[in-house]
Amino acid sequence: MWDPDGKIPERMGTLMCVKGLLIDLDGVIYVGDTPIDGARNAIAFLVQNDIPFRFLSNTTRKSRRTIAGKLAAMGFEIPEEHIFTPPLAAIAHMRKTGRNRYHLLTTGDVDQDFNDIGLNDGTGLVDYVILGDAGDAVTYNSLNRAFRQLMGGAELIALERDRYWLSGDGLALSAGPFVTALEFATGKKATVVGKPSRAFFELALQEIGLHRDQVAMIGDDIVTDIEGAQAAGIRGILVRTGKFREQDLTPGGIIPWKTIDSIAGIKEIL
Amino acid sequence: MWDPDGKIPERMGTLMCVKGLLIDLDGVIYVGDTPIDGARNAIAFLVQNDIPFRFLSNTTRKSRRTIAGKLAAMGFEIPEEHIFTPPLAAIAHMRKTGRNRYHLLTTGDVDQDFNDIGLNDGTGLVDYVILGDAGDAVTYNSLNRAFRQLMGGAELIALERDRYWLSGDGLALSAGPFVTALEFATGKKATVVGKPSRAFFELALQEIGLHRDQVAMIGDDIVTDIEGAQAAGIRGILVRTGKFREQDLTPGGIIPWKTIDSIAGIKEIL
Repeated sequence: MWDPDGKIPERMGTLMCVKGLLIDLDGVIYVGDTPIDGARNAIAFLVQNDIPFRFLSNTTRKSRRTIAGKLAAMGFEIPEEHIFTPPLAAIAHMRKTGRNRYHLLTTGDVDQDFNDIGLNDGTGLVDYVILGDAGDAVTYNSLNRAFRQLMGGAELIALERDRYWLSGDGLALSAGPFVTALEFATGKKATVVGKPSRAFFELALQEIGLHRDQVAMIGDDIVTDIEGAQAAGIRGILVRTGKFREQDLTPGGIIPWKTIDSIAGIKEIL
Repeated sequence: MWDPDGKIPERMGTLMCVKGLLIDLDGVIYVGDTPIDGARNAIAFLVQNDIPFRFLSNTTRKSRRTIAGKLAAMGFEIPEEHIFTPPLAAIAHMRKTGRNRYHLLTTGDVDQDFNDIGLNDGTGLVDYVILGDAGDAVTYNSLNRAFRQLMGGAELIALERDRYWLSGDGLALSAGPFVTALEFATGKKATVVGKPSRAFFELALQEIGLHRDQVAMIGDDIVTDIEGAQAAGIRGILVRTGKFREQDLTPGGIIPWKTIDSIAGIKEIL
C-alpha cells in the first residue's frame, strides 16, 4: 500500500533483508581438508552479529559429529546441531510417517546419526531401505538384500542421487547409480531426502526458526543448492568456489539471486 | 500371380514352411536341472528329420561348453557350436568393429567363451566394458573400475538387461540394474547384444544358413523371444512352460505366430 508519509513500512524492510543463512559445506567452507580463504572470518562475522545459520550439506559418508570435528580441526567451532545432512532428513521422514524399521546401506560412521531411531535390519522385513554413498559397502549381496526388502514392501530412501564425485584417486561412483539400479530392478521410485529435496530445506528452516523469505542458501552447485533453494522460495547465493564453473551461468539457465566470489564476500550483502 | 493351372508354385510352398528353428533353453528345454516333459523327444525328432536348429539363450553365467555339458547330463547330445549365448554376439560385435580390448565383468566360466579374442583388462584403457549377470563379481571397486574405463572412452556392451531372475534361494538381481547404474553414472547408452537384439538373431540365422522367413523362434518370454524375433521378421512360437503366464497374452499385446503347450508339440506344426 502507498504510504503518504513516504516511509518504508518496518515489516517490509524486515522481509527484504536476509535474516539467516543456510550454508553448503564442501566447496563453500572448505575443499578437501583446506578452508576456503576468508571462510573463517565470514563465519566469525555471523556469530558476532547474531546472524543465525545452519550448514546444509549432502555428504552421506560422515556423521554429524565427525563433520563437526573436521570443522573444529580447521578452526570452525560449530555446534554439531548446526549441521544438517541427509540422514537427519531421513530420520525426520521416518518420524513423520511413524515407520522406523530400516536397512541402512552407507559407509563411514553415518550409522551413528541413526542411533536414536528404530531398528537397522539388513535382511528382515523393513519399512525403508536407506541408500547413501556406500562405497565398499556396495556388494552384490548387500544390494540383493536391499532389492529383496524392496520387493517385500519396503520403500527406497535415497540420501542423495549424485552420479559421481572426485575422490583422492580419481572419479568415484556416488549413490545415484545404485539408487537407479534398485529403481530399475524393482520398478519403485526413490524418495530423495537430501538437497534439492524441498523437505530438507524446510527441515533446516524449521530449526533456524525463520520464514523462507528471510533466508538465503549459499552454495557452489547451481542445481542442488541454487535451483533447489529457489524452487523452495529461498534466495540462492552462488559462490565461485568449489565445483563452480563459469558455464554454470548459462543464458536461459538458473539465475541465482546473487553471485559472489566466495563466502568471504558475505558481509557485503547482508 | 494367378496360376491358370491352379497349382501352388513350389517356391511359395518352401517359403511358407518352417525350415529351421531357433530355440530358447531355460523354460523351453529345461527348468533348473530338469528337462521339460517331451523336450528330449522333440529334439530327437528334429535331428532324425534333418531339421536344422540352434539354441539361442540369454544366459551369461555359463560358457558354451558348460551349457553343452549340462544339456548332455540331461540327455541332450548337442554340439556346443549349436549353442548361442550373448558372449558370442559380443565377440561378433568386436570382430565387426575391429576393436577387441575389453574388460569383462561376469561370473561363472563365461570368460572361457572369450579365450580366442583380444585382451581382457580390468583397469587399463579398453574399447569395451562388457557386463553380464556378474553375481558376486559385482563390487564397488569392480563397478568403479568399469565406470572409469567408460569415462576414459570405452563403450558399454550389455550381455543382457534383465531386471532379475529366480535363483535357488529367491529373487536375484540380473545384469540390467548394473547396466542402468553405469548408464546413469556415465551418460552413455549400452549396446545390448543378447535377445532381443536384432544382431543376435541375425548371427544365429547366419550360422543356421537360412533366411529369416524360413525360421521360427521358440521361447517362453513374450518380450525377449517373441517380440524380439517377430520384430526381426522371424516367426515366434510361444510355449506355455517356464516363465510363461496367461497374462502375457493380453489383448493389444504381442501376438505370437503360434502358441503351443510345450516344445513337445513342435512336431504338429512343422
